[in-house]
Order: sequence, then C-alpha cells, then structure tokens
Amino acid sequence: MEPLDAYLRRQRQLVEEALDQLLPGTDCYPPVLMEAMRYSVFAGGKRLRPILLLAATEAVGGEVTAVLPAACALECIHTYSMIHDDLPAMDDDDYRRGKPTNHKVYGEAMAILAGDALLTHAFELLSGPPLSERFPATLLLQVAHRIARAAGSFGMIGGQVMDVLCEGQQVDTAVLEYIHRHKTAALIEAAVTAGGLLGGGTPQEVAALQHYGHCLGWAFQIVDDLLDVEGDAAQLGKAVGRDAAQGKVTYPALLGVEASRQRALSLMHEGVAALAAFGPRAERLRQLAAYVVSRQV
Amino acid sequence: MEPLDAYLRRQRQLVEEALDQLLPGTDCYPPVLMEAMRYSVFAGGKRLRPILLLAATEAVGGEVTAVLPAACALECIHTYSMIHDDLPAMDDDDYRRGKPTNHKVYGEAMAILAGDALLTHAFELLSGPPLSERFPATLLLQVAHRIARAAGSFGMIGGQVMDVLCEGQQVDTAVLEYIHRHKTAALIEAAVTAGGLLGGGTPQEVAALQHYGHCLGWAFQIVDDLLDVEGDAAQLGKAVGRDAAQGKVTYPALLGVEASRQRALSLMHEGVAALAAFGPRAERLRQLAAYVVSRQV
Repeated sequence: MEPLDAYLRRQRQLVEEALDQLLPGTDCYPPVLMEAMRYSVFAGGKRLRPILLLAATEAVGGEVTAVLPAACALECIHTYSMIHDDLPAMDDDDYRRGKPTNHKVYGEAMAILAGDALLTHAFELLSGPPLSERFPATLLLQVAHRIARAAGSFGMIGGQVMDVLCEGQQVDTAVLEYIHRHKTAALIEAAVTAGGLLGGGTPQEVAALQHYGHCLGWAFQIVDDLLDVEGDAAQLGKAVGRDAAQGKVTYPALLGVEASRQRALSLMHEGVAALAAFGPRAERLRQLAAYVVSRQV
Repeated sequence: MEPLDAYLRRQRQLVEEALDQLLPGTDCYPPVLMEAMRYSVFAGGKRLRPILLLAATEAVGGEVTAVLPAACALECIHTYSMIHDDLPAMDDDDYRRGKPTNHKVYGEAMAILAGDALLTHAFELLSGPPLSERFPATLLLQVAHRIARAAGSFGMIGGQVMDVLCEGQQVDTAVLEYIHRHKTAALIEAAVTAGGLLGGGTPQEVAALQHYGHCLGWAFQIVDDLLDVEGDAAQLGKAVGRDAAQGKVTYPALLGVEASRQRALSLMHEGVAALAAFGPRAERLRQLAAYVVSRQV
C-alpha cells in the first residue's frame, strides 16, 4: 500500500485539478468575483473533506473520479465558511494558511459575496452535470439534502452561531460539545456519508460511515483547539493563542490539554470501530483517522 | 375573476403560512438564529417571486399547494440577498420595509450567518420533503440547478458584484443592463421557470415562461430605480434618493426618467407577448406584469 503521505499528496492533486475545472474561470464575468472565489479555494488547505469523501467512496467499492464534483462541492462549502468566519464582524482574522484572508485582499463586500457564491456553487455542482449525467437523480437529491442540512441552521451554521455567542462566556461541556459537533463534525460527517451514498454503499455501510464521520469530525475540532494552544504558528500559517485571546470556548480551556487529547483519541477509536465490517477496504479511512488526531497542521 | 389585489393578498397569505411552517421554529436551537432568519423573512415584502412561481404553475395547469415549498425557497434566497446587501460593508442600509435591517437588530455577525442559513435552507427545501415526496427527483434536481445557477456567480451574485464595483463609476448601458439582468432578473426568471417546470409545463411552455420572467424581472429593477427617484419614502418603508447618494448606477441616471419608464413598459409588453400561446390560463401572469410596472411600493 502506498504510504499515507504520498496518497494524501495524490488525492489533494486530484481534488485541486477538479476544483480548477469546476470553478468558474477568471475569464468569466465578473472576473474579480471568480478571482476572489479562487483565491481562497486555492490558498492551500488539507482538502480533508474531499479526501474523506473519496476514501468513503473507495471503501464501498465506488469509482473515485465519478464523485470528484461532490468532493469539490464540500470544499466550496468549507471555503465559504472560512471566508465568512474570518470577516471583521466574525473572528476578524488577517491570515489563514499563511496568506492574507479574503477580505484583506478583496475587501469585505467582495469577501461576503465570494463566500455566498461558493456556497451557491456547491449546490450547482451537486444538482447539475457532470454528476447529473452519471448518478440517479434520487441519489443526488438525497446527497444534496444531507449536505444542505449539515451546512445549515441545524448543522454548521448553528454551531457557528453558538461559537460567536459564547465568546467570553462561561459555558458548560454540553454547549461546547454542541458547538464542536455542529460547527465542524456535521460537514465532515456529511462528506463521508455522501461518499458512501454515491459510491453505492448499502444503508448499513452508509450508517457506519456516518458514525465514523461524526467521530472523526469531532476529534478534528478538538485537535484544532489543541493546536491553537500548542501548535507552531509558522507551521500552521496562522496566529496561535487566538482562541484564548478571543475568549473562545475550547476543549483545552474547559477540560485541560491532557483530557482533551484523550477525548480526541477515544473518538478516533470509536470512529475506527464503526468501520469493522468493512475489512481492508476501509484501511485508508482508518489511516485518515489516525492522521487527523496526530496532525501538526 | 377575483380582483388582483384580493388575489395578491390571498397568495401572500398562502406563502406566509407556508414559510411559517417550513422555516425552523424559534423553539429550535439556537433560537436566536431562527429568530434572526424569521425576522427578515416576516418583515413584510410583496412575496413577488413566490407569487410569480405559483402563477406560473397555474398557467401550465399545475397544482399550487404542491409547489409552495419551492416558492418559499425562492423567498429564502431573496431574503438572504437583502440581508447581505444591507450590511455595512455593502449598501449599509438601516431600514428596509419600514423596519430596522437585520444587522441593526441582531448585529453584523448574526446577519451574515442568518443570510447564509436562509440560502442553505432554500436548497434544503428544494431537495427534501415535502417536495421530494411529491415530485420526480429528476425534475427537482433540474429546478434546484436552475435556481442555483440564477442565484450564483453567473446570476444574482455576479450582478451584485458589479453593482458594488460600479458605485461612483461612469458606466455605459451595457454594464447597467448586465447589473439589472443579473442582480434582479435572473432570480425572478428562475422563479417563473421553476413554477412552469414543477407545474408540468411542456419545454415550449417553460421557455415562454422563462422569457416572460426575464422581461418582467428586468422591468421590475427599472421600476425599482424609478421609485428611488420618485417614490414616497413613507410608502416604500425605506429612504429614497439612496441610489444617487451612493453613486449607484441606475436607469434614470443614465437614460432619464421618461426613457426609463418607456423601457420598463416595453419590457412588460415583450414579456406579455411571450405568453400568447397560453390563452386565458396566463391571465394572472399578465396582470402581474402590469402590476410590476405600475407599483408604487
């Protein structure tokens, strides 16, 4: 089996080539909008959500290249959420992945609109060609609905709202867990589930993948909190210690560093356990789980 | 035939009852998000896009109550675009329809997120129950794709970007027309087209409705520009003369009031002419066209 880092590089390239093809080009009108959309999409990033989607498709024996546009839709949603999160009215961040944030380059109005356009583009991708030429409409509709639900007021946006509202507040574990499960885990869960559905997984397989995705997404956010405490700013490409400075609710602040690390590990194990029935086909998903909790970036 | 104003009142009520049912309730978590979404959705409004969608469904002999969730999806998209347009970084408006704008009540962060949530909710409505229990998935996917395209970078957002970029600039008629056709006409066209598709219209009927919708949407924006010059602030529920003060590109500024009025009228006639083959079934659409160009609000 190809080493994980080579696999990640290869998948990342696959996703980035597809994004380049599937996003409007800067030869389209109005070019500055397309440029602003592309600026943040191509500002680096691990491409975790698309790679998880592709790996879930592989795990159920589906064809990876066919589902690439759905993987790109997930990355569009993730990128829009980052652009809006970074706005002065929200987290007010100047840098992300070592580059100036969208509004620092294009201004606030364009950053809001580029985010809106990326969110809308995700649903254009999920409902149109090439996916609609390849997959049954019932399946695509189901995937679009799950992703919309995961990204909306009962998912990512709900979590983001509570994250903003709880800044500087004393909150308990229940609220912190609501934030993590919605702000981050919901979309990662949707990515893995979409990969399973489009890959032709059985309902049992899709349910197992969904459980794995939820655990992994949650662990991912705990590790994100830990990296803000312990990470290396140069490596991360953004300032560390921002969470504490902004009075953000985080796992390490509430439970301490060691207990947070244990929580992330136990979620990883729970996620991997959900994949037992898959046998060797889910090996990449297991490796990706270990990667998520051990990552330094 | 019931007089138009009674018809409009009745349809508006139908749409508002459906919106109330189909938007997350304030008993859902987090309540402040649901409240912010509902605040702008229920802050008045003509419900033009949903009413046009329903009238297009009627014109092709479809069932109005079945398509209501799609009509609500259009209103969600329209409302999100208003919330984001009103933000300080965009048009910086304090009032809309006589009420404080979303960010004046809930703050900028919540206004951005409530807009994002409404946009996402539109695609949740278009891809899930009750529509998915009633209509073939292929049809819903087609409708979702057309609406996404009309709302995105090649449609409404593209127009909005140029509107923002051209503030205080000298522009020619071609750019002004790009802005109007994209910022406003694209979504109105999509509403009418969606009504025709879901109502079971033939490809010819849908194409005719699309042409009508485009003309009507364009005329609507010209009238909007005219009302900003000549309208009554109290009646409109917002300040007038804002376009000129903000250096916005408008029809009256470029062509004069009289030529603008003529352009709106000629677009209305072109739109109505596209409906010739429908006979009496399209009478409401014809009345709605006349209403759009003669409105004072």
